[in-house]
Amino acid sequence: MTIPDGQTLADVGEFALIAELAGLFPQGEHVLVGPGDDAAVLRVRTGHVVVSTDLLVEGRHFRRDWASAEDVGHRAAAQNLSDVNAMGGTAHSLTIGLAAPPDLPASWAVDFAKGFAAECALVGASVVGGDLARASEIVIAVTVIGACTQAPVLRSGAQPGQVVALRGRQGWAAGGLAVLGRGFRSPRVLVEAYRRPEPPYDAGPAAAAAGATAMIDVSDGLVADAGHVARDSGVAIDLHRDAFDIPEPLQAVAAATGSDPMALVLGGGEDHPLLAAFAPAAVPDGWTVVGDVREGEGVTVDGAEYDGPTGWVHF
Amino acid sequence: MTIPDGQTLADVGEFALIAELAGLFPQGEHVLVGPGDDAAVLRVRTGHVVVSTDLLVEGRHFRRDWASAEDVGHRAAAQNLSDVNAMGGTAHSLTIGLAAPPDLPASWAVDFAKGFAAECALVGASVVGGDLARASEIVIAVTVIGACTQAPVLRSGAQPGQVVALRGRQGWAAGGLAVLGRGFRSPRVLVEAYRRPEPPYDAGPAAAAAGATAMIDVSDGLVADAGHVARDSGVAIDLHRDAFDIPEPLQAVAAATGSDPMALVLGGGEDHPLLAAFAPAAVPDGWTVVGDVREGEGVTVDGAEYDGPTGWVHF
Repeated sequence: MTIPDGQTLADVGEFALIAELAGLFPQGEHVLVGPGDDAAVLRVRTGHVVVSTDLLVEGRHFRRDWASAEDVGHRAAAQNLSDVNAMGGTAHSLTIGLAAPPDLPASWAVDFAKGFAAECALVGASVVGGDLARASEIVIAVTVIGACTQAPVLRSGAQPGQVVALRGRQGWAAGGLAVLGRGFRSPRVLVEAYRRPEPPYDAGPAAAAAGATAMIDVSDGLVADAGHVARDSGVAIDLHRDAFDIPEPLQAVAAATGSDPMALVLGGGEDHPLLAAFAPAAVPDGWTVVGDVREGEGVTVDGAEYDGPTGWVHF
Repeated sequence: MTIPDGQTLADVGEFALIAELAGLFPQGEHVLVGPGDDAAVLRVRTGHVVVSTDLLVEGRHFRRDWASAEDVGHRAAAQNLSDVNAMGGTAHSLTIGLAAPPDLPASWAVDFAKGFAAECALVGASVVGGDLARASEIVIAVTVIGACTQAPVLRSGAQPGQVVALRGRQGWAAGGLAVLGRGFRSPRVLVEAYRRPEPPYDAGPAAAAAGATAMIDVSDGLVADAGHVARDSGVAIDLHRDAFDIPEPLQAVAAATGSDPMALVLGGGEDHPLLAAFAPAAVPDGWTVVGDVREGEGVTVDGAEYDGPTGWVHF
């Protein structure tokens, strides 16, 4: 079945829409029963199972005029897949709850699902279940389940004398958001980075294998998330400004808006790079050492308290 | 920490509220890492893992003037635990996404969590993760993960010549909803049944062990959910009116509203009893045979098409 143009969720109806969406989600070999029964059935090997859940709310976490439905699908999947990556695991199964107004174009839901499925395909994960409900705004609830083949890397294992290293883009999504917030559409590479983050999915398990002692994905902001590692590990973390190469598009945005590009790097979230603690000699290729772990508490930048914006406030 | 009376979610803030809520969820032995890291970590034995997700939206699935926060917590957990029950499994882990207006009393979120935790305790399941977000209405997203010690019971295994049997209350929640919808508060037992369903949690695994060939929990409505079994199994199901003892409170509501109590039984949802197909000799104690499985398709009542309300429409 194909949904005709211009039809809303209410026109199409719950069961027809579920059937349409379910057809967009290929099922991996570990999925014995996919969407459509009371529950999905998976075959999982003994070991560590990791589980995380995230909400995205229209107007709060995305705007339909700033990102396509497909973009939102990519992002909703990416931020959850990244949580598993940050444990050193690989995601295998996800569920989606989609609450939406009845007048939402059904094509929005279909395009969202296509983007979500495409992002999941990057790691070989399957969408195994979901629910639809009527609401006054779009609320997307994603739960991800993954497996770790070695001990999961928590936030709590950083030790004084280690370094913290970063893998993946940082500050790009914040730059894109700054651009969109001012009514512009370029630098396009930053806008795209905001719309579709590119978490380094292979890097989490590799970091675990290389001996990372603590790891987090940077979703709230670099200083904020480093603070979560510092708190949970009972240590202090000092970040070093000169460790960061400010890429040209970030310099351009900062110049155009009269702001400090380092603020985008230190305060920006939603790029979902990994921040991990390693023994100095254990930092894997592809990671950039951006700071060190010390006795104490809290996060400093070049040894001093950082008073710029540090992250996202949810309420 | 205890949240002072009268504080809203915005007053308390995300991180303080998460800390408060996390303290309400005891963690089972299978939970190696509970809420607070990028993901929870569970130890799961090899076998069949079942996963399901559900949304509850304020004004659509619950009203704050019709049910306490604790009631809503019980119900949100129950409807998810019931999905695992309907596979013949037992739930071990759940996640909660709570999107809510910033002016929601923080005590509502706390009481919701208490009710949710109490319902989970009935089956020994743990709340292992969650997320909070700001939204214009309350949207609750729950995902449940469970284990089956034998082959999961799908909706698709009913065969002609078998019977369908019911275990648990049916029509009570619909009766309670009818009462509340008319501005009354009694019969209290029905109102309570609507506010806090009592799924027969031990009955799902027992039915699987007894050889149930198809199973579903009745959440949409008896005729509607029997229809899902009939469709997925490629059979017809005939329900028998005289198999149902209409309990006195349902008779009272029907008399007071000039309606047919059988309509509450056949059309009502949200009680979460189990409906399962068995060979006639295999029906376990405690189950009531309410119909039979035939060649054909669709659901009939006493051999005729049923034209009453059959279930819940989501859009």
